Amino acid sequence: MPTHFRCEIEDGIATLRLDRPDRKNPLTFDSYAELRDWFRQRPYDDSVKAVVFGSNGGNFCSGGDVHDIIGPLTKMSMKELLAFTRMTGDLVKAMINCGVPVIAAADGVCVGAGAIIAMASDLRIATPATKTAFLFTRVGLAGCDMGACAMLPRIIGQGRAAELLYTGRSMSADEGERWGFWNRVVAPEDLETAAQEMAARLVAGPTFGHMMTKTMLNQEWSMSLDMAIEAEAHAQALCMQTEDFTRAYNAFVAKEKPVFEGN
Amino acid sequence: MPTHFRCEIEDGIATLRLDRPDRKNPLTFDSYAELRDWFRQRPYDDSVKAVVFGSNGGNFCSGGDVHDIIGPLTKMSMKELLAFTRMTGDLVKAMINCGVPVIAAADGVCVGAGAIIAMASDLRIATPATKTAFLFTRVGLAGCDMGACAMLPRIIGQGRAAELLYTGRSMSADEGERWGFWNRVVAPEDLETAAQEMAARLVAGPTFGHMMTKTMLNQEWSMSLDMAIEAEAHAQALCMQTEDFTRAYNAFVAKEKPVFEGN
Amino acid sequence: MPTHFRCEIEDGIATLRLDRPDRKNPLTFDSYAELRDWFRQRPYDDSVKAVVFGSNGGNFCSGGDVHDIIGPLTKMSMKELLAFTRMTGDLVKAMINCGVPVIAAADGVCVGAGAIIAMASDLRIATPATKTAFLFTRVGLAGCDMGACAMLPRIIGQGRAAELLYTGRSMSADEGERWGFWNRVVAPEDLETAAQEMAARLVAGPTFGHMMTKTMLNQEWSMSLDMAIEAEAHAQALCMQTEDFTRAYNAFVAKEKPVFEGN
Repeated sequence: MPTHFRCEIEDGIATLRLDRPDRKNPLTFDSYAELRDWFRQRPYDDSVKAVVFGSNGGNFCSGGDVHDIIGPLTKMSMKELLAFTRMTGDLVKAMINCGVPVIAAADGVCVGAGAIIAMASDLRIATPATKTAFLFTRVGLAGCDMGACAMLPRIIGQGRAAELLYTGRSMSADEGERWGFWNRVVAPEDLETAAQEMAARLVAGPTFGHMMTKTMLNQEWSMSLDMAIEAEAHAQALCMQTEDFTRAYNAFVAKEKPVFEGN
Repeated sequence: MPTHFRCEIEDGIATLRLDRPDRKNPLTFDSYAELRDWFRQRPYDDSVKAVVFGSNGGNFCSGGDVHDIIGPLTKMSMKELLAFTRMTGDLVKAMINCGVPVIAAADGVCVGAGAIIAMASDLRIATPATKTAFLFTRVGLAGCDMGACAMLPRIIGQGRAAELLYTGRSMSADEGERWGFWNRVVAPEDLETAAQEMAARLVAGPTFGHMMTKTMLNQEWSMSLDMAIEAEAHAQALCMQTEDFTRAYNAFVAKEKPVFEGN
Repeated sequence: MPTHFRCEIEDGIATLRLDRPDRKNPLTFDSYAELRDWFRQRPYDDSVKAVVFGSNGGNFCSGGDVHDIIGPLTKMSMKELLAFTRMTGDLVKAMINCGVPVIAAADGVCVGAGAIIAMASDLRIATPATKTAFLFTRVGLAGCDMGACAMLPRIIGQGRAAELLYTGRSMSADEGERWGFWNRVVAPEDLETAAQEMAARLVAGPTFGHMMTKTMLNQEWSMSLDMAIEAEAHAQALCMQTEDFTRAYNAFVAKEKPVFEGN
């Protein structure tokens, strides 16, 4: 079990939380690396069928810790810096390639690398108090961090993404819902339940299909439409050979609700 | 003339409708293939200058028929399955490459492959009752069907697309308008007129230009911006050698409305 | 100093304006070429740290002049036409690659190539009276001009972009704000101030970071997500070796506001 973040697994849902609520859950070198490794293990472990990345103490994540991360970075060589930026990028790659849907349930502060983790999730739920900011320019850096310039425009459009990434200004929960960043905004007391219910719905399957959906949603941005259509013909033909497809058909004929088994 | 769907051609507008209104217009192996072939013929036939894909009996299309399509698929070999998924994808490719604008006029049920047909159209009109759902996960499959994971994020953004494709939940007409899926939502009694008027406006030309707009709108997603700008320099230079360009200039000088002829 | 448009440089902000307000500021062969050359010089000149492309006499730009540009084009050879469409595309390429943020402050008429200039800017401010239209089909041409079919769908989505590019219809300021084309809509008397304040905020830095943000925002559309993440690891590691990064850290520790110097 991980030691630098909390992880509870129940009914196929892994619920993760950063665990320094007194400091609004910053990331550290250790938690970055451990999260990356945890997501990298997912394709080899069938027991986790969906992930909820939750909040803790009313906040999601305050990003890279100023003292524990930014301070040391200012003293590193280029080789060490690249090792760090690759590690943080590898967390996003691991989330994107983990094979199961990830739902971010973000209350309160959701900034810097925390905003990236929300963005690298498949589905996103906020509360009215959630403040999302890509703070990188505030610490003298560029808005292009961990794939932000690729992911954010694909979610909210190039114009809005440019403003958030250049200025580092906070996006309100209301803006985020109107712009398509948040799938839902719920009351803080409902956040946990909403995320768990959404995860349970996905865990009910078809999980093989969800794995394919996730894979293709992320790969097809850099394909031509003709290539994407051919790639989906392959992917869906694979899915048509799963038992879950037959189970759904049989249930339909029997006027029952299908029970998927993920194979 | 096609036998598996209705097709009326008048004043350069081909109006298509699936024709099993009692079952909300499902697709069959035959109608898939015939639609694909019909759209593939368009580049060689100048008489059709715009297509309206309309509704019938208050519904657009209920997708692949459960009995006629899904049942047989559960018994097919991989080779046969791939032939089927490629055929459905080929319908989208044929629509994308048909050279004339396609307007979906979708009332009521617009689900599964029906939602894909709406999405593969250039412009989309709905009514307040239109319910759009990418139902593939409901039958044990993935959301990646006929190019959905490429097209839907480009229309409504990655976050909203992910939710619709993972869950198969219905998108209301109001959501679809706010999210940019529908260009307009009109009363059911105005749907046909709105689509025909939009088509007539496009048929009035410049149709050579519209063919280029359609081509480039679909090709440029997988180009770099520099490449896209060069490609458009070529495309627009071609258009500048059409008579329609000169007609527009002459009309402007004469303070008249230009009459385009498509050459 | 340019002779075919106005250019004032103050406090690191270059404010450009087309200067034929009696005709709503059309572009000419000369102003296209001079704008292209001016933006091409930016990477070699550190004195300009942000650009405001402003309005003049209540209008932004009426596009290519009918008499000065469209008339002559109707008489050109293909070779000459391609030279022209490449020159106009080169203006967009020069803006995209100029290395500093460009803010369009568009009042009134913002059409044709004027709408493209707004679109090729990084941030966009309008007034309630701003009317934006991609008029190319009105003169017998295609909607694919100067990169429009690549840029507009990335800003407002494929469905809305298709409608504007096929029909040439006007997008109201309200639509443009809801759709993410305009970052803000302000009263006409506040337009200049809003643009200058936004530019001043960006000039305050970190300008090296902003240059990287701009570069990556435009390059990553044609990368896979994995490639984009690796590219950002490089870009951000570079930024971590700037003094501005250390300045930000030191200011944070000292509980002060960082003063960036762009190196």
